[in-house]
Formats: sequence, C-alpha cells, structure tokens
Amino acid sequence: MIEYPLNPTTPRSHLPFSPCTKVGPLIFVSGQASVDDAGGIISDTFEGEMRRAVANLQKILHAAGSTLKHVVQTRNYVHDPRDLQEFNRLYRELFSAPYPARTTITSCLTEALKFEIECIAVVP
Amino acid sequence: MIEYPLNPTTPRSHLPFSPCTKVGPLIFVSGQASVDDAGGIISDTFEGEMRRAVANLQKILHAAGSTLKHVVQTRNYVHDPRDLQEFNRLYRELFSAPYPARTTITSCLTEALKFEIECIAVVP
Amino acid sequence: MIEYPLNPTTPRSHLPFSPCTKVGPLIFVSGQASVDDAGGIISDTFEGEMRRAVANLQKILHAAGSTLKHVVQTRNYVHDPRDLQEFNRLYRELFSAPYPARTTITSCLTEALKFEIECIAVVP
Repeated sequence: MIEYPLNPTTPRSHLPFSPCTKVGPLIFVSGQASVDDAGGIISDTFEGEMRRAVANLQKILHAAGSTLKHVVQTRNYVHDPRDLQEFNRLYRELFSAPYPARTTITSCLTEALKFEIECIAVVP
Repeated sequence: MIEYPLNPTTPRSHLPFSPCTKVGPLIFVSGQASVDDAGGIISDTFEGEMRRAVANLQKILHAAGSTLKHVVQTRNYVHDPRDLQEFNRLYRELFSAPYPARTTITSCLTEALKFEIECIAVVP
Repeated sequence: MIEYPLNPTTPRSHLPFSPCTKVGPLIFVSGQASVDDAGGIISDTFEGEMRRAVANLQKILHAAGSTLKHVVQTRNYVHDPRDLQEFNRLYRELFSAPYPARTTITSCLTEALKFEIECIAVVP
C-alpha cells in the first residue's frame, strides 16, 4: 500500500530514510538539503544551498510522477533568520502562484546546513 | 486536483504561500501567527498572539468549509518554553475534546513571533 | 469522519491532545517522547529516551491497527545535535528498509526532553 518511488536520478543517502513515500495520490518527501547525488553535504551560500535542495526535491518529485507545481505543502527550515528575506526572494522564483501552503521555522538545523525543505505533493 | 480555498475574510499575506490548500477531504493550512488581515505582524502578549493566530486559522478553515472541530493534527511553535503552561491552558479553551493529534516544539521562531500554529483538517 | 483510536495500552497524557487521529487509511500520531503510561516524563540517556518514545509510538500505532512497518513519514526532534549519530544507529535498528520518508531537526525541544518523534502511517 506504501510505494517507494525511485529512479536513477534520485539523490541517494547512506542514512535510513527513503527519498519519498507514496500513498494513493499523496507523496511525502523527506527533508532535502544541499547534498550531492551520494548524499554528501555541499556547503555553499544560502542561495546555492537552497537551489540545490529544491533541485533535489524536484528530482524526487519527478521520480514519483509529480512536479513542483503539484506541491500541496512545504515545510522550510532556514538556519539563520537573517536569510529569511533571501529565502522568500528565491522561493518566489522557484515556486509559482498559486503557491503551496507553507510553514517556515528557523534555528533548528545542525551547523552543517543553511537550509532544508520537505513537502507533501500529489501525483497529477 | 489541488484547490486553493479563499474568501474575503481570509487573512492575506505578501509572502509566497497560500493560506491553505485542499486535496480530496484534506486541508493543509499554512503556519498562522499573530498577523492582521494584510499579513502585518501584531506583537502582543503570548495570550494575545495565540488567540489571534488561532482566530486566523479559524477564518482559513471556514473559507475551506471546515472548523476547529475538524482539525486532525496541529503543529505548534512556542518561541519561549516558559510560555508552554499558558499555551496548554489556552489550547484547552480554544480546541475541544476529543483533541487533534499534536506536536509542540520551541525556540525555532524569529524574534518577531511568540507563537505559530499549522494544521491538517478535513472537510466535514 | 475523524476517528480517535485508543486502547488500554495506549499511553495517556493530561495534556490536550489525542495519541492519534485517523482519517480514511491515514493515521496522524502526536509527538511521542520518553514518558510513562500516565504521560510523566522519564529522563534517561538518549538511547533510553529514544527507545521509550518509539515504543510509545508502536503502542499507539497498534491501537489504530497499524505497525512501524506501515509508517509513511516520520519527523524527528533530536535536542542535542551531538546525538545525531546515535539517533541514526538506533533508527536503523528500530525501523526497517524500505524506510519511511523522514525529516530530522535539532535544538527545538524543552530541556526536559532529549528526543521526540511524530509520524503519519497507514492502516494495512
């Protein structure tokens, strides 16, 4: 009843989680950060980390038959509150109206990450 | 397949998110805080901020055809852990038994906010 | 339309939340920590707290007709980032592949808790 969509372009991780799970039309995507295809962290500017995290989210949605336009809700973790303005600027560019529901919190990532995003999406 | 319920009483925001999204019977509501109808933050006591955030949640649920009694799960962000007792006191008043599933975390909001709440609800 | 599964082995709490709620095949479980059957916090090592929290999660899933193998998504709160390695070691033991989708954040629990976990599961 739970599916575990994957394809060769989905970023891998050595940690114990699936990139996403699917139940009926709903896709639950694990928290995505600035990591390479093997799950290694790539430290970068806030913009670089957010672009890489959302690109990883996109690859996972694609493997599950969905896209950023079919995201229902995102939860965003911005490590440093001073990056919130930049976060909103990039978010407007990466997502498009009508936007998903959204929650954004701060100061709850390890020092190694500037940004993380998770979402629930649907298969169109 | 994703609906974006809105009506004239739904609080607006200049930020890139929808107040809520709806998929089948499920409503996903964005994190709600103490903001006015244009999305401007109203700093207040913890009680004032929590009452305003839950009132905003209620307006959004109403626009989507739901109510606080149809909330399935809430996620609560209490900035200062010393407000947790007050949070539980008010929560008992604002919600009613049988209560939704709930998670409450602390210390992860910007300094501008004392409280934020998001939820998943159903349309009765 | 919302069910509130409970049985005599489900841990109780004096706080205003249900252990879980159920809508169709989806179960939403409240944040679980190291508490006894009456909801009293049991302070322990990280390992002790995590094992007790996941055991509580298991009891609640069981009351709702589900199991750890039917968990779709977990959200994990590790208070001290230095416990993340131990968290992953125990997680591999307590859950099994193919793993649920997962997000893990840190530094957002009260001082009284080292670990908390919430999940969405399905009824098989």
